[in-house]
Amino acid sequence: MKRREFLTAAGTGVAATTALAMPAIAQSMPEVKWRCTSSFPKSLDTIYGAGEFMAEVVKEATDGKFQIQVFAAGEIVPGLQALDATQNNTVEMCHSASYYYVGKDPTFAFGTAIPFGLNARQTQAWFEQGNGMKLLNDFYKSYGVVMMPGGNTGAQMGGWFRKEVKSVEDLKGLKMRIAGIAGQVMAKLGVVPQQLAGGDIYPALEKGTIDAAEWVGPYDDEKLGLYKVAQYYYYPGWWEGCAALNYFVNLEKFNSLPKTYQSVLLAAMAQSNTNMLARYDAKNPPAIQSLVRSGAQLRRYPNDVMDAAYKAATTLYDEISAKNPAFKTMWDDVKAFRSNAYLWWQVAEFTFDDFMVRARSRG
Amino acid sequence: MKRREFLTAAGTGVAATTALAMPAIAQSMPEVKWRCTSSFPKSLDTIYGAGEFMAEVVKEATDGKFQIQVFAAGEIVPGLQALDATQNNTVEMCHSASYYYVGKDPTFAFGTAIPFGLNARQTQAWFEQGNGMKLLNDFYKSYGVVMMPGGNTGAQMGGWFRKEVKSVEDLKGLKMRIAGIAGQVMAKLGVVPQQLAGGDIYPALEKGTIDAAEWVGPYDDEKLGLYKVAQYYYYPGWWEGCAALNYFVNLEKFNSLPKTYQSVLLAAMAQSNTNMLARYDAKNPPAIQSLVRSGAQLRRYPNDVMDAAYKAATTLYDEISAKNPAFKTMWDDVKAFRSNAYLWWQVAEFTFDDFMVRARSRG
Repeated sequence: MKRREFLTAAGTGVAATTALAMPAIAQSMPEVKWRCTSSFPKSLDTIYGAGEFMAEVVKEATDGKFQIQVFAAGEIVPGLQALDATQNNTVEMCHSASYYYVGKDPTFAFGTAIPFGLNARQTQAWFEQGNGMKLLNDFYKSYGVVMMPGGNTGAQMGGWFRKEVKSVEDLKGLKMRIAGIAGQVMAKLGVVPQQLAGGDIYPALEKGTIDAAEWVGPYDDEKLGLYKVAQYYYYPGWWEGCAALNYFVNLEKFNSLPKTYQSVLLAAMAQSNTNMLARYDAKNPPAIQSLVRSGAQLRRYPNDVMDAAYKAATTLYDEISAKNPAFKTMWDDVKAFRSNAYLWWQVAEFTFDDFMVRARSRG
Repeated sequence: MKRREFLTAAGTGVAATTALAMPAIAQSMPEVKWRCTSSFPKSLDTIYGAGEFMAEVVKEATDGKFQIQVFAAGEIVPGLQALDATQNNTVEMCHSASYYYVGKDPTFAFGTAIPFGLNARQTQAWFEQGNGMKLLNDFYKSYGVVMMPGGNTGAQMGGWFRKEVKSVEDLKGLKMRIAGIAGQVMAKLGVVPQQLAGGDIYPALEKGTIDAAEWVGPYDDEKLGLYKVAQYYYYPGWWEGCAALNYFVNLEKFNSLPKTYQSVLLAAMAQSNTNMLARYDAKNPPAIQSLVRSGAQLRRYPNDVMDAAYKAATTLYDEISAKNPAFKTMWDDVKAFRSNAYLWWQVAEFTFDDFMVRARSRG
C-alpha cells in the first residue's frame, strides 16, 4: 500500500496546511501530550522498548511539541485491557499484540500471528504491499482504532517441555501453557492448553502443575530461567513463524492530529517496528548459545507433530471461516499471499540461507 | 546501536532546542531545500522510488518546510558519481549503493553486500544492533559523508545464462556481466567479468558478446526481458544474499540541520528502508511466476560451483585484508556476526521456512 492510500484507509481527512506564515506554523505545531499504555512489562525490554523508542523519535522530530508517555502493563490498565483502554479513550494509544484479543473475535489473530502463517518479512510485505493493512484496519475500525505495525519477534521457539516429545502421541494429555488460536490447534492434538501469566510459568513447571510452556524465543526465555525446570527446548514455534506487535491508536484521536504529527507518528512507528526485529536478530544468537551452555536440550519438533499441527490448523481455519465472514476474508487473503510468497522464498532466499547454514556447520 | 549513540556516531552536535516561545519554533523549522541525486533510473521503480518515498515523508512531517528533491541518475550527475557529488557538496545527499565505489576502496562493499554475506534481516541487525553502522560511518567519515540504510532487495537471483552450467568447469571462459567483488570471485572460478550498464545487457546477450549477466531479481529482471535471450535463470545470487541500498548525506550538511529535521530525516529514511524490502517481497512472487510462464528455466547453482565460490570469496577476503586494515576490521566483524547469526537462524527461522516450503509443495 502506498503511504497516501494508507492514510486514506486510516480515515484521515486533515487537509495539508498550505499557509507558510508564522501563525500557521504555530497552529501546525500545537503542544500535544498523549499516553500510550503497553501490554508488556519493562522486563521484556525488547518489546516494551519499542514504545519508548517510538515516543523518543516523535518527541525529537517535533521539537518536544508532541510528547507520548509510555506506561508499562498495569500502570494504567492491565496489559490485556490495552485495546479497550484505547477504544474508550482512557489513553490515546497502546502498544499491544492483536492476538491478545481473539476472545472478542478470532480475526484479531491476523494482526500478530496465526499458526503456519507468514514469516516476518512476508508479514511486513502483506501489511504494507498486500491487502494486510487495508483489511485489518477495515476490521479494527469497528473497535474505534487504527493499527500500525509495532515490531516483530521473528520466528519464535516452540516451548519448553519437561519430557521429550518423540511423536504426536506424546502430546496427548500434556498440560501446556499456550494461548489463543495456537492453544486451539494444540488442543486438536490432545494438549490441554493452560493460560498463565509470564511470571507464573516457572513455579508451575517446577511443581509439575504444567508439563510444558511456550514464551517467546531465546533472549526473553532465558530471563525466565525455564531451562532449569524443563530442559527440552523445541523448535520451530510453528504457531509464530513471526509475531507482529501492534500500535493501536484511537481513530478519532489520530484523525484530530495535525497532518505533520500524523506523518511523524507513522514514521516513528515504522522506525521502531524495524528496530525491534533487528534487536531480536542481534540478541537471540548469543542467548541461544548461553541457554545451550546452561543445559537446554534443543529438539526439533518431530515431523508427525508438524504435519498433524498443520492439518489441525487448516481444519480450524475452515471451521472458524464457516461462521465468521471477517475471519474468512482475512484467511483467504493470507492463504493466497502465503502460497505466492513461499513459492518465491524457496528460490533465492531459502537456498541462500540453506547454503550458509551448511557452510557454517562445515566451519 | 541505540538512536542516541547513532547520532553521536554521525557526529551531530546540535543541542536540543529548549525554548518554547514562537521565535524558537520558527528557528527550529527553517525552510530547507535539499537535492538528492539517485544512482538509479526511474525505471527501477522499487529502488528509485525509495528516495521519493523518503522525501515525501520528510515534506509531510515538516509541513513542507524541509523539502528534498530527488533526481534520477544522469539528471545532475551520472549514477556512479552520486557519492562524489555528495562529498563535494554538489548535492546535499544521494541514494546509492555503497558497493558501486569499491574502485575507491573495497571496504565500500560492506555497506551493500559481499558474496556469502548476511541476509537482509541479519544485515539490518548488524547495521543497527551490531557494529555495522558504527564501523561503516567511521569509514565513510573520511569521504565527508554519513550513511543511513536506504532499502534492500532481499536475496537476489544468480543471473541469466545462455547455456546450462552443470559444474564449475562450465564457467571457465564465460563472459559474464558482473561487477565489483562478485566479479573478482567469479574471476577466480574462470569467468571473465564484464561491466555493462543495465540497458546494454540485452543486446550483448542477444549478439553473444557476453554469455551471462546478473541484474537483480525477478521483478527488475523481467523488465529487461533477458529471458528472451538467455533462458537459464540461476539461483541463489550467492554474491548478494541481500543488497542494502544507502543514503549518503554530506556530513557538514547533516550536522547543520536542526535536530528536529535530523530526527525526521532519520525516521523517513528508516521508513523507506523497510518499505523497499516489503515492495520486493510483494513484487517478486508474481514476477518469478510470470518469468517461468514466459520460458525462463530455473536452475539451482550446482553444489561444486557454490563450494568453489565460497572458498574463492574467503580467499579473496583474506588477500584484501592482508593489505587493507579498514577492510580487515569490517570483514572480521561481519564474519563473527554471520557465524552467530546463522547459528540461531538455522534453529527457528530456517526450520519454519523449510516446513512451509515443503508444505506448500505438497499442496
